[in-house]
Amino acid sequence: MTAERPTYVTHLECSARGERYPADTLHQLSRAGKPLLVRYDLARLARDWSRDDAEARPADLWRWRELLPVRRTGDIVSLGEIETPLIPIPRAGGARVLVKDEGRLPTGSFKARGLVMAVSMAKALGVTRIAMPTNGNAGAALAAYASRAGIETVILCPEDTPEANVREIALQGGRVWRVNGLIDECGAIVAEGTRQGRWFDLSTLKEPYRIEGKKTMGLELALQLGWRLPDAIFYPTGGGTGLIGMWKAFDELEALGWIGPERPKMFAVQAAGCAPIVKAFDEGADHAERWENAHTIAAGIRVPKALGDFLILDAVRKSGGRAIAVEDEATLQAVSDAAGQDGLLLCPEGGATLAAYRQALAEGWVGAGNECVLFNCATGLKYPMPSVTRALDRHQPIDFDAL
Amino acid sequence: MTAERPTYVTHLECSARGERYPADTLHQLSRAGKPLLVRYDLARLARDWSRDDAEARPADLWRWRELLPVRRTGDIVSLGEIETPLIPIPRAGGARVLVKDEGRLPTGSFKARGLVMAVSMAKALGVTRIAMPTNGNAGAALAAYASRAGIETVILCPEDTPEANVREIALQGGRVWRVNGLIDECGAIVAEGTRQGRWFDLSTLKEPYRIEGKKTMGLELALQLGWRLPDAIFYPTGGGTGLIGMWKAFDELEALGWIGPERPKMFAVQAAGCAPIVKAFDEGADHAERWENAHTIAAGIRVPKALGDFLILDAVRKSGGRAIAVEDEATLQAVSDAAGQDGLLLCPEGGATLAAYRQALAEGWVGAGNECVLFNCATGLKYPMPSVTRALDRHQPIDFDAL
Repeated sequence: MTAERPTYVTHLECSARGERYPADTLHQLSRAGKPLLVRYDLARLARDWSRDDAEARPADLWRWRELLPVRRTGDIVSLGEIETPLIPIPRAGGARVLVKDEGRLPTGSFKARGLVMAVSMAKALGVTRIAMPTNGNAGAALAAYASRAGIETVILCPEDTPEANVREIALQGGRVWRVNGLIDECGAIVAEGTRQGRWFDLSTLKEPYRIEGKKTMGLELALQLGWRLPDAIFYPTGGGTGLIGMWKAFDELEALGWIGPERPKMFAVQAAGCAPIVKAFDEGADHAERWENAHTIAAGIRVPKALGDFLILDAVRKSGGRAIAVEDEATLQAVSDAAGQDGLLLCPEGGATLAAYRQALAEGWVGAGNECVLFNCATGLKYPMPSVTRALDRHQPIDFDAL
Repeated sequence: MTAERPTYVTHLECSARGERYPADTLHQLSRAGKPLLVRYDLARLARDWSRDDAEARPADLWRWRELLPVRRTGDIVSLGEIETPLIPIPRAGGARVLVKDEGRLPTGSFKARGLVMAVSMAKALGVTRIAMPTNGNAGAALAAYASRAGIETVILCPEDTPEANVREIALQGGRVWRVNGLIDECGAIVAEGTRQGRWFDLSTLKEPYRIEGKKTMGLELALQLGWRLPDAIFYPTGGGTGLIGMWKAFDELEALGWIGPERPKMFAVQAAGCAPIVKAFDEGADHAERWENAHTIAAGIRVPKALGDFLILDAVRKSGGRAIAVEDEATLQAVSDAAGQDGLLLCPEGGATLAAYRQALAEGWVGAGNECVLFNCATGLKYPMPSVTRALDRHQPIDFDAL
């Protein structure tokens, strides 16, 4: 998995005000109620570490150990966080469109990146009980890693969360509850239990380490593309941890001198039925209002209100990208096209990024010659697929012309 | 993915009689009706290639290019065949039990290894239409790769094949038919169509290249363990291509001088409701009889009659291993234990290997100090999981003590 490595964490910092907080103690939000970011001694790391060193290591998330918060190897709770492949989809996408297939990670989604880090740090800091709201995949990753670490979990999800998610959470040892509300309403129950001292709250961005795990998507991309970044990234955006994390990763890589100041256009992809970030982007607002009556088949991005809204909007704007809303119909068409034409089964949220790419191409926000990376955040196997009715009776003569 | 590389294929060989057949033309079975094996100029390869060369390449299936049959890089139809991780399961298994998690491959199963090779070779050799019987996962892999290659597919599966499999095959562009029979009865229909010249038959071992893809499991294991092999391998055995392939891989690695003559004990794992290899093993027979009334929840190993039975039995016996039958109940318990205790969701066939390991440990066929590798051949997410009924009404006061 990974050897003992020197660590470079210096402190934590409020993402809004820049206040410093000590590392190696339990934190939730900053005093301003904003996410905390982990800071490293990048100047010292630049002297100690090189791109070649990183490349020579096994191709997994732990190759980035010096840019991660876990101090002791013994605290790492791993299920095999391999580097995910970049897969061209020339027919459904275009000649330079690559899908980063995050469905290959443990528990079948990119949530494993954030949760392996958060659970390892929770273990390191002595947490014994965790609660979290989820739209499904984060809960599955939490349950798996926490069970492995011997940490108890209480996981709350909207009642119409994909059935596969609810079941895998339970099978992997999580105490999962369906709630008649959306993810932020599940989060309110978790917050109340946290206030009562019943558990540690692992909600998106309410503790500092999930973002450190998610940033490895950006680190991997740079390495996989030969220490450059793509022209554009299409990212399915619910809580937005991954987008914020990649943006942080790029800054850290630049501080190390491993990449230059160029950045990809960051496209935050949302569903038309739940597009608070798109609305704020279009209106030029710094923060997003809660989206009422949220609905979309892409459960993972049905997040009416994101704690990191200001960080998402800031990264998207600085990058020259946009926030894009796509209709469910376009998402389903994209899933069908990628599977049927390129043999790649995307999850609905991944399908949304392909639909958004098509929209961006049509609008001229990207060109056909641009290298674009779409994030398929989970395996498509967890989601309902169209049923099939073709059947053959082998006791009857077979009409081979009809097969 | 992979660069152009020199290739070393010399010819094909009948696995029963040793007759030679030319490479680079279409073949099904040998004249004796037995599987063909691909042979390489290993003496020349031993001079040209080293373990260090192999290790320095990206960690995917194509790092083994010189030991694979595809000549031209342009014929490779890839969906990102990453090296699969070895994951300890100390609680449900034991201190030295590792699961090779094949569910991380494209289409979520180890079938991708065989099918990426067979479809790439079919493309290289001009095939435009393929048919195949399947218990589910092989069909999914075939549909994905063939659609990507622009090859048409007809895929026949037993009517009670897991629903996720049937649907993913169709979504990935395969023409899939449910048949009221078992996999060998589906195979009979494919064989009749082949006789009529309607398609190329990609059934297990009826063409020479799936086994070459599957053998990469053995190559990877040797590299991942530092150029040694484990004490024992537990392999879920339906058609047995992977077991035969790994045994071939070990011989090739030894011929290259990369490993010594030691071999793991090979345990062929079957379900008690479909155990033709176990019966033949116990009776000292060279070939297995068809198993009547086959039934098991582990659909992937519900194979009443395997074309490569004599090769499986030979490898198992030479290795000092055994064929083991496990009850479905023990398989389900193993799946539940690995998920709940170690956070790893196995497929039923993977669960069967853990159940078989437990049996082998109890019988003294392996010791607790032996390093044992269990093959989890597919992601557990494709299979039914127990339902969950816990629900909370957020409009009522929450009983936090009950969460």
